[in-house]
Amino acid sequence: MKYVIIGAVAGGASAAARLRRNDELAEIVIFEKGEYISYANCGLPYYIGNVITNRNALFVQTAASFNKRFNIDVRTQTEVISINRTAKTISARNQTTGEVYEETYDKLVLSPGAEPIRPPLPGIGGKGIFTLRNVADTDYIKAYVQQEQVKKAVVIGAGFIGLEMAENLHSLGMDVTIVEMAGQVLTPVDFPIAAILQQHIRSKGVKLQLNTAVSGFEQTENGQKVMLNNGQELDADVVILSIGVKPDTKLAAEAGLKIGEARGIYVNEYMQTSDPDIYAVGDAIEFTNPITNKSMVTYLAGPANKQGRICADNLVFGHHKKYNGSINTAIVKVFDMTVATAGTASKHLQLSGIKHQVSTITSGSHAGYYPGAKQMTIQIAFTPGDGRLLSAQIVGYDGVDKRLDILSSVIKRNGTIDELTEFEHAYAPPFSSAKDPVNMAAFAAENILLKRSVVFYWNKFDKITPDDVLIDVRTKNEYNAGKILDAINIPVDELRSRLDEIPKDKKIYIYCLGGLRGYLAQRILMQNGYADTINLSGGYQLWNTCNTEMNLI
Amino acid sequence: MKYVIIGAVAGGASAAARLRRNDELAEIVIFEKGEYISYANCGLPYYIGNVITNRNALFVQTAASFNKRFNIDVRTQTEVISINRTAKTISARNQTTGEVYEETYDKLVLSPGAEPIRPPLPGIGGKGIFTLRNVADTDYIKAYVQQEQVKKAVVIGAGFIGLEMAENLHSLGMDVTIVEMAGQVLTPVDFPIAAILQQHIRSKGVKLQLNTAVSGFEQTENGQKVMLNNGQELDADVVILSIGVKPDTKLAAEAGLKIGEARGIYVNEYMQTSDPDIYAVGDAIEFTNPITNKSMVTYLAGPANKQGRICADNLVFGHHKKYNGSINTAIVKVFDMTVATAGTASKHLQLSGIKHQVSTITSGSHAGYYPGAKQMTIQIAFTPGDGRLLSAQIVGYDGVDKRLDILSSVIKRNGTIDELTEFEHAYAPPFSSAKDPVNMAAFAAENILLKRSVVFYWNKFDKITPDDVLIDVRTKNEYNAGKILDAINIPVDELRSRLDEIPKDKKIYIYCLGGLRGYLAQRILMQNGYADTINLSGGYQLWNTCNTEMNLI
Repeated sequence: MKYVIIGAVAGGASAAARLRRNDELAEIVIFEKGEYISYANCGLPYYIGNVITNRNALFVQTAASFNKRFNIDVRTQTEVISINRTAKTISARNQTTGEVYEETYDKLVLSPGAEPIRPPLPGIGGKGIFTLRNVADTDYIKAYVQQEQVKKAVVIGAGFIGLEMAENLHSLGMDVTIVEMAGQVLTPVDFPIAAILQQHIRSKGVKLQLNTAVSGFEQTENGQKVMLNNGQELDADVVILSIGVKPDTKLAAEAGLKIGEARGIYVNEYMQTSDPDIYAVGDAIEFTNPITNKSMVTYLAGPANKQGRICADNLVFGHHKKYNGSINTAIVKVFDMTVATAGTASKHLQLSGIKHQVSTITSGSHAGYYPGAKQMTIQIAFTPGDGRLLSAQIVGYDGVDKRLDILSSVIKRNGTIDELTEFEHAYAPPFSSAKDPVNMAAFAAENILLKRSVVFYWNKFDKITPDDVLIDVRTKNEYNAGKILDAINIPVDELRSRLDEIPKDKKIYIYCLGGLRGYLAQRILMQNGYADTINLSGGYQLWNTCNTEMNLI
Repeated sequence: MKYVIIGAVAGGASAAARLRRNDELAEIVIFEKGEYISYANCGLPYYIGNVITNRNALFVQTAASFNKRFNIDVRTQTEVISINRTAKTISARNQTTGEVYEETYDKLVLSPGAEPIRPPLPGIGGKGIFTLRNVADTDYIKAYVQQEQVKKAVVIGAGFIGLEMAENLHSLGMDVTIVEMAGQVLTPVDFPIAAILQQHIRSKGVKLQLNTAVSGFEQTENGQKVMLNNGQELDADVVILSIGVKPDTKLAAEAGLKIGEARGIYVNEYMQTSDPDIYAVGDAIEFTNPITNKSMVTYLAGPANKQGRICADNLVFGHHKKYNGSINTAIVKVFDMTVATAGTASKHLQLSGIKHQVSTITSGSHAGYYPGAKQMTIQIAFTPGDGRLLSAQIVGYDGVDKRLDILSSVIKRNGTIDELTEFEHAYAPPFSSAKDPVNMAAFAAENILLKRSVVFYWNKFDKITPDDVLIDVRTKNEYNAGKILDAINIPVDELRSRLDEIPKDKKIYIYCLGGLRGYLAQRILMQNGYADTINLSGGYQLWNTCNTEMNLI
C-alpha cells in the first residue's frame, strides 16, 4: 500500500506518523511546500516576542528525524501542483531544482491547511506589512522588528493571533495599536467576556480601535501610514495583518473534489473526500458543527491532530472511527489574562435561531483564604428545557484553562447542567474551593432552569420603566461608590426588615456586585409575595465593564 | 416548618443556607459544639505553616454573619447530646452555661462530621502530641510550635493531612520525620504514583519511615520519644497524629438510626436516614461507591457541600434529587509537587475482584517549546472490554489538577477511553499541547484495548526467563547511564535495520524511558513477524523510581 500525504504540519504529520505505526510495511511519502515540517505553529508569536528564545525549539520534528523514526519519505520544499484522480498520481515541483515529477498513490491524504487573508487594499504589498502563518513569515518579522527604528506597531485584526502578536510586540517595547473591524476583540466570544479583556488590554497601554476598518496603506520614509475608514491615520513601523485565514482548497477544487458550503474541502465522518481514495484533514476541511448542525471550518491545532490520527486509523483498519466534529474549543493568553471558549456563543446561537438561556457568574480560582486566588468570570449558555450546555466562555487570570476544559468536555458529549452540578472536582485550597467555579456556574444555571431565579442582562436596562423598582442590594459603601440609574439601596442583610419599603405590585429589578447577593435578595422577595422580580446576571461589575467599553467604541 | 441541623461546618452549613434560600419562611436552628461555624477546615495546615497569615481568613462565615444573611438561629458551643425521635426533639447542652434544654424539630439534619483516630498507645495523651481537625486544635498547635525549642517534628500517618502538615512544619524550619505504617505514602493511590512523590519528599530533606508503626510515646524533658515497632526511637518536640478519622456516629447510633456496613450513618440516595424525618450529610454518612458497589465513607469537603445542597432541595421540594455517590476525587500539594486521584486505585480494584487494565504515561504540562513545561505521570485503570474508566492518578508539578478534573468527570459518569480520545481541550502553548496529556493517556489506553500494544509493569521483571529477550530501545547514551537487568541496546531509530539481531521465536520485552519509543518499537516488531512482544508501561523512569523506593523500605 502506498500513501501520499500533502502537507506536513499538524494534521498531515499526525496522519503520517500514525499511518506508520498502523502499517509498518506501507510506503509513505509526504510532501511539504515549505522548508520545515511539523513545526510549532502556535509558538511563532512567542518566538517573535523572545518568550521562546531558541529557534530550534520550534521544530517538533525535522525531515531527517521524521524519516529516521518513522521511515517516511519526506519531501520538503516540494509543492504538489495537481492531482490526477483517474491515474491516481500527483504532480510535484521541487522548488529548489524546479524539477516537476509525478508520484503514484493508492490513497492520498490532503492536509494543505489555511492561508492568511490579505484583502486587496491599496498599498498592502508595501514594506513592513506582514502576515504570520509559517516559519518563513516568522523569520521575516523577527528580523524586521529587531531593527532599532521599529517602535510603532499596528496589528490589524483582534483575533487569537492578533492579540498574541500585540502582547509579544508590546513586550519588545513597542507602542502597539490594535485595529479591529468588529465592535469587540475576539469575535468568537460574547461581548461581556470580550469587554473584560478589552479593559485589561487597555490597562497595559495597548491602544484598541474597535469598529474600525483599514482602507489602505501609504509608504512613508520609515514605515507605513495606515489609513482607517474613519479618516484617521496611524503611523506604523511594522504592520501585522491578522484578519483571519481561509482554507487552502485550490488543489482539491482543481482536482474536482467537492467543496462544501463553508468553503472547506468536503469530507464524510471518516475524513474521506468525495473521491473514495482521497482523504483530507486539518484547517482546509469542513464538517458539521454538532451544536448548530451547520457546516463550518475551524483553524485549530487540536482538531487537526486528532483528525490526522482518525484518518490514519480509518485508512488502515477500515472505516470504524468517526470524527464527531469540533466545538471550537480555544484559548488565548493576553498579558496576565486568559480567555477561553467552547461551543457556540450566545450571539451565534441567536443567529442560528437556537433557543437558549445565559448565566454569568464570578468565582475565585481557588479558596479565597489561600494566597493568590483570582476572580474569573464564567458565562454559559444552555437549552431552556433540559439544560443542555451549548457554550462556555471564561475570562480571568488563573485556572481559566482548567474550568473551560471541563465545560468543553460536557458540551462535547451533549451533557447537561444537571451533570455539572454533580461534577466532583479535586479540591484542596491551592487548587479550588469546596464548590468549584464550574459547580457555581451550574448551580446558578440550575436555579434559572427551575425558575427559582429569574435573570436579566447588562444590556436590558432600557426595558426598565418609571413604574418599576430598581434595588441595589449591595452595602451602602458599595452603592455610594457607584450605582446604576436611580437604583435605591437596600443591602441584602437589611432586606427582611425593610420589605415595607418595596411595593408588592411592581416589577422589582435587583442587582448586586456579581449576582449572588441579588439572587439571595430575589429568593427573599419571591417568597414574600413579590410576584415579579428579576436579578442582574453578572451584577454591577459586569454591567459597569460592558457599559464602559460600549461608551469607548 | 422547623428545621434543626446538628453541625455547622461544610455539609451542615451548606444545608442550612440552601434551606433558607429554598424556604424563606421556615424556622431554622443550627447547633455547633465548637466555637466556630463554617470555617476553612482544609486551610488549617496552611495557617500553622504561615502560608495563611490572617486567622480571620479561616472563617468563611461567623455565627453573626450567618444569622444576618440567612436568618438562621445559630447556637455555637452547644452540643446536642441526644435525639428523641418519638417526641421529635433533641437535647442540647450549652457548653458555656452548662444549661441543658430541648428543642423540637419537624425535620432534623445530622452533619456531625468525623473525629480523628487516637489509638490507645502508651503515652498518647502526653504533652506536644496533637491531632488536627478543627480551629481549636489549630490554635493549640500553632501556639506550641511557635516556641523556640520546637525544632523536631514527627508526623504519624502519611495521608493528605499528614503530608500537608509535614510540608508546613518543614517550611517553619523544622526537622520533620514522617512515620507511616503502610509501605507507601497516600494509601489511596497506587505505589508507582506514591513512589514518585516519595522521592520528592525525600529530596526536600523530610525523612520518611515507611512500613513502620508507632508503639508508644515517652515524655522527655523537652518533648517526646516516639517508640517505633522496629525498635528505633525518634526524638520529637512536637508530634502530629494524622492516622485518619472515623465517622462521628455516636448520636445517631444512640438514637437507634441505622449504621451501615462501612460504619457510617446509613442514608438513602435522598440523604434520608432510616428515620424519614432525619437526614444526614457529610463525613459521618456512608453511601454506595459507584465503582465497587460497596458501602463506603469518605472525608472530603466537596461531597459534603454538595450533599448539603441536595439534602436541602429534597427536604423542601420533595424527593427529586439523587446523590449518586462520590468517587473519592482528591488532591494534595506536597512541596512543589501535586498528587491527585479519582476513582478506585488498581490495588483496590484487585481486592474487589474488578477486572481492569492499567496504563501509565508521562506527558508535558504544556507545549515543550514554551517555557516552564513540566512532566507529569498519569496512571489510569479501565475495563478490558468497553474501556470504561475506573480510576485516574496523576503526579507532577503543574497542571495536575486540570487533568485530574477532566478524568474525574469521565469516571463520574461512566465514561470511556473512547470518549477521552475525542476530548477537545483548549490549546495554546502556555496551557497544553495539541494533544493534551489526557488525550495521550487515552491514546495509550486505546492501543492496549485494541491490542495494538501489549504492556507489562515495573514489578513484573521476575517473569522474564533466561530464554526471553529484553531490549532497551533508548539511545546508547541513555543505555550507558543505566539499564534494567541484562537488556541489550537497540535504539528505536536503528531497529528496522537491526531486526536480524532479534530472534523471532522468543518473547521480546521492550522498554524505553517513558513508554512511547517502546510502543513504536513494539509496533515495528509486531508487524515484522514477532508474535510475542511486550512493552514496559511507564518505561525505565518509572521502573527506576519504583525500584529505588522499594529498596528503601
